Amino acid sequence: MNSEPIRANPLLSNPFEQALRSELLLSLRASTPPQLREALEYALFPGGARLRPALCMLVAEACGDAESRWTMAAACAIEMVHGASLVHDDLPCFDDAERRRGRPSLHAKYGESMAVLVGDALLVAAFGVLGRSGNARGVEILAEASGPGSGIIAGQAWELEPSAPLEEYHRAKTASLFEAAAALGAISSGANEGAWRAFGAFLGMAFQAADDLGDIGVVDLGKPTGKDAALGRPSIVRTEGPVAARQRVKSLLDRARAEIPESKTSMPLQRWLEGLAQELLRR
Amino acid sequence: MNSEPIRANPLLSNPFEQALRSELLLSLRASTPPQLREALEYALFPGGARLRPALCMLVAEACGDAESRWTMAAACAIEMVHGASLVHDDLPCFDDAERRRGRPSLHAKYGESMAVLVGDALLVAAFGVLGRSGNARGVEILAEASGPGSGIIAGQAWELEPSAPLEEYHRAKTASLFEAAAALGAISSGANEGAWRAFGAFLGMAFQAADDLGDIGVVDLGKPTGKDAALGRPSIVRTEGPVAARQRVKSLLDRARAEIPESKTSMPLQRWLEGLAQELLRR
Repeated sequence: MNSEPIRANPLLSNPFEQALRSELLLSLRASTPPQLREALEYALFPGGARLRPALCMLVAEACGDAESRWTMAAACAIEMVHGASLVHDDLPCFDDAERRRGRPSLHAKYGESMAVLVGDALLVAAFGVLGRSGNARGVEILAEASGPGSGIIAGQAWELEPSAPLEEYHRAKTASLFEAAAALGAISSGANEGAWRAFGAFLGMAFQAADDLGDIGVVDLGKPTGKDAALGRPSIVRTEGPVAARQRVKSLLDRARAEIPESKTSMPLQRWLEGLAQELLRR
Repeated sequence: MNSEPIRANPLLSNPFEQALRSELLLSLRASTPPQLREALEYALFPGGARLRPALCMLVAEACGDAESRWTMAAACAIEMVHGASLVHDDLPCFDDAERRRGRPSLHAKYGESMAVLVGDALLVAAFGVLGRSGNARGVEILAEASGPGSGIIAGQAWELEPSAPLEEYHRAKTASLFEAAAALGAISSGANEGAWRAFGAFLGMAFQAADDLGDIGVVDLGKPTGKDAALGRPSIVRTEGPVAARQRVKSLLDRARAEIPESKTSMPLQRWLEGLAQELLRR
């Protein structure tokens, strides 16, 4: 008889992690090439802060329907798109980042070809999740937030232009997915997405400004610093200096809070926002 | 007064080309980075044989509803996914192909970073098209056909394994999108997709076998030859020899024809099939 107490697997005890794993498995088959399977698992687990899916689920909860099948599917799809963007951004032809989340980046471990495929696969799988959940409007929202119009891919493409408009660049590269996360949470609960888009967008802009501060070491985001400067990227810190940038994070957070519809205040969302604000503003 | 006769722009006179252009534009914004916009246009126009969208539209026509909004949207989405796979397959870390359709490949012209983004953008845009048309089941079908389970990405990932099962590799890399094209045509007309999947899959397998023959110069597909052999890829010609491979193309085409439901024979589909068969079997 085994005298060890049975400990719940912390991953399996978190409903989001469990759903993400199960959606990944649903996108695979017995015949999936084994290295691709392993690399996809590596790309998604263990994750980072899972900010975007949390935002989606908390907005859904604030709108009164945390249990909707659409909510969890949307949260998983958003995290997959985010994962895809990290894997492709780390590639040698972009950031050439050897490390991510404290271990080798995907291409450093599995090679560049596999990293291209894993990014592709996560994009496709994200839409597969929304398709399976029957959420065509969600597909449209996520495609806009990740696509070449004004989504993540547009943001990434600004880095290839001789110069980029700072706000547009940040809005596309970062805020678009936060905005979509909030919108997807709202529609999952049958709420008006418009009211929540601005909330998500301001939050995303605050996150990006803090990320720029992190690049010069003012805020600790657990990543190597100096990357933006080394790659000559537009950065609010380089444009306005660290003091103004820090003020910007604060005011963007305030503007985000002001967008929450009064009838939809919720304790879990408030608490999460407070924690996030502390994280983004701590030295 | 201009005495020149007004000639219709051949691109605009073809409803599919027109729809594809308009779906691409719908996925862009005034703020899209200019080089990304130009590279996306370069990736899609002028196209190749447009076989997969033709298959989708012809199956829809055979099922009695050529005018459905879903049909054209699905045809555009399929061609975008196909375009994405060509751009990423040509990358230095895969085929390292300098040319495509008689001109520089996308990365040869716009650089590797842009080629990664264009492939990503076409994948996302494809799902955006289906999302806008409200076709959630279509999203599911296209995600399976392009994804890491048994779709194009799985097929591509087999090339990174020490060895690959030939049939599974061909099924995933090529037949899956033909199968999806037929299925999407069928559901666009409210027909049973199952009946058309096998038709599309056999057609795709025939196309891939002919492509293998093209690689050794037996069939002219307008591409450089010897690539599969040089890259050590599984090929039906290397496994079975050119005579058996040619016999295989014929028998796969016969099996495809046999799958067409008797009540759904249509002249346009028959004529297209005859033309395709001649193309795949000519020396």
